[in-house]
Amino acid sequence: MPLSNISHILLILSGKGGVGKSSTTLQLALSLNILGQNVGILDIDLTGPSIPRLLGLEDKKITQAKGGWVPVEVHPLISASGSSGDEEGGRGQKSGGQAVARGALHAISLGFLLPSRSSAVIWRGPKKTAMIRQFISDVAWPDLDYLLIDTPPGTSDEHIAVLEELHKLSERRPGQLSGAVVVTTPQAISTSDVRKELNFCVKTGVEVVGVIENMAGYMCPCCGEVSNIFSKGGGEEMARENEVPFMGSVPIDTGFGGLVDGFKFDEKGEATDEKDPRLLVDRYKDCRLCRIFADFARKVIDVQS
Amino acid sequence: MPLSNISHILLILSGKGGVGKSSTTLQLALSLNILGQNVGILDIDLTGPSIPRLLGLEDKKITQAKGGWVPVEVHPLISASGSSGDEEGGRGQKSGGQAVARGALHAISLGFLLPSRSSAVIWRGPKKTAMIRQFISDVAWPDLDYLLIDTPPGTSDEHIAVLEELHKLSERRPGQLSGAVVVTTPQAISTSDVRKELNFCVKTGVEVVGVIENMAGYMCPCCGEVSNIFSKGGGEEMARENEVPFMGSVPIDTGFGGLVDGFKFDEKGEATDEKDPRLLVDRYKDCRLCRIFADFARKVIDVQS
Repeated sequence: MPLSNISHILLILSGKGGVGKSSTTLQLALSLNILGQNVGILDIDLTGPSIPRLLGLEDKKITQAKGGWVPVEVHPLISASGSSGDEEGGRGQKSGGQAVARGALHAISLGFLLPSRSSAVIWRGPKKTAMIRQFISDVAWPDLDYLLIDTPPGTSDEHIAVLEELHKLSERRPGQLSGAVVVTTPQAISTSDVRKELNFCVKTGVEVVGVIENMAGYMCPCCGEVSNIFSKGGGEEMARENEVPFMGSVPIDTGFGGLVDGFKFDEKGEATDEKDPRLLVDRYKDCRLCRIFADFARKVIDVQS
Repeated sequence: MPLSNISHILLILSGKGGVGKSSTTLQLALSLNILGQNVGILDIDLTGPSIPRLLGLEDKKITQAKGGWVPVEVHPLISASGSSGDEEGGRGQKSGGQAVARGALHAISLGFLLPSRSSAVIWRGPKKTAMIRQFISDVAWPDLDYLLIDTPPGTSDEHIAVLEELHKLSERRPGQLSGAVVVTTPQAISTSDVRKELNFCVKTGVEVVGVIENMAGYMCPCCGEVSNIFSKGGGEEMARENEVPFMGSVPIDTGFGGLVDGFKFDEKGEATDEKDPRLLVDRYKDCRLCRIFADFARKVIDVQS
């Protein structure tokens, strides 16, 4: 049965584009990894997949095996004894209840199937629906604690298709679909779009695990002044009005681009122009946003326990 | 014949969401108005329509008349003699070649048809395609110099549908579809998505009128330091690589939210908390971005002449 070896499934939603859904998905995944969870990222943004680029793995390709498509491995797990999942022969699988120091990360995205990174995917709804059905039913995921599904903006074919498939599965495995993390920016134009997304969750029976307010304030690296470039507090207010949990605010961090591009951070948390050869998950620990997302990851785990 | 009284049609595109397509559409429309052009905005972002909110007209409704849907009037034209289009009985129509001091602005958006601003539109592709066909064929636009079509992110049903309809019309009226203005932010994740959009333009035979780089730098209101929050120069580089015209860069202006919400600007160009009763187009002249978009509007007019 598809997805049967996955404990929890979380959707990452937002009404508006460009609010940081994909960077939120990635950071939540890395933070869950750091807490010892095995995580998969399923990117169902078919016309604008960002995950391959954020992972720095744009040239990777999905391979086909007997059980279906094999996801791209971002990093293997490390057991508490220090050995990696690869050495044990598993694709990030937890080995017999052994304690895990850092979980494995795998990812699936249409970006891993396209001939080039600038290929335009000009697909109508039915083709998108078919692709998403395949992504749900034909991927040979390793054992996962969490599958995070990164969605495109809006409430259309991709969202309807993925929820139809997940609801079918949940009849056999109630509670597997944990719910949705909804991302917004603080300004009114974004929160009003996200209200639509909350209504979508109500209409489709998806629980809202929490709202994350992204791009909340920017600290001038020169004088330290925090500017609320995109207004302030809109996400928290919206969560309160709609009676859904507010997870917290994430400031704009110009260092994040440097993290994605593989540059070292200096002691102030600024990205330098020197390359850092370590894994993304290890480099992320030096990012100022890591502490904030560690808290979100704990909240996600607490909801399930 | 639909759209037969419209001189030029421009698409506003971007691969990625949240780069400021709708605010670009609005500012280009206002700037063309200030140059004496009659403009219509057609918002085909069906699941996340931003135009009603940006115009401050969320409570307006589209009405039905004999010739089709009547667009919402944002402001009437003012002739060079100082009289407004309304007084002359026209809906912003140019009266017998009379000089126009400021053009009229009209708008159509699904937001004007929804029962409430937080209503979620959960539509599959075929329903979206049908809606867009209606938007193209059933709107009783007044005489327009420019119709600006604000699109959702990506390259999917809405884009395919609108281009199919426009290409059908252009067989009868070649040159009416002037092309596309492509909006990006400077960071690589956005420019790589916009490359997809440029490929889409090539595949669908739409000329790229120019690339606008939005959110290029932020000036700290405290110390005046300009920070390249979302990197720098990516839009210009992408335009050069793809051999399409680069129109220019637009910095982040925190005052823009205040403009939309109807607040006065102080002499430094900052939004105050005092309401300004003037029309949006008149208030926009005090916005720091007005000068930049005046230049873009002139470039758009130059392409057509």
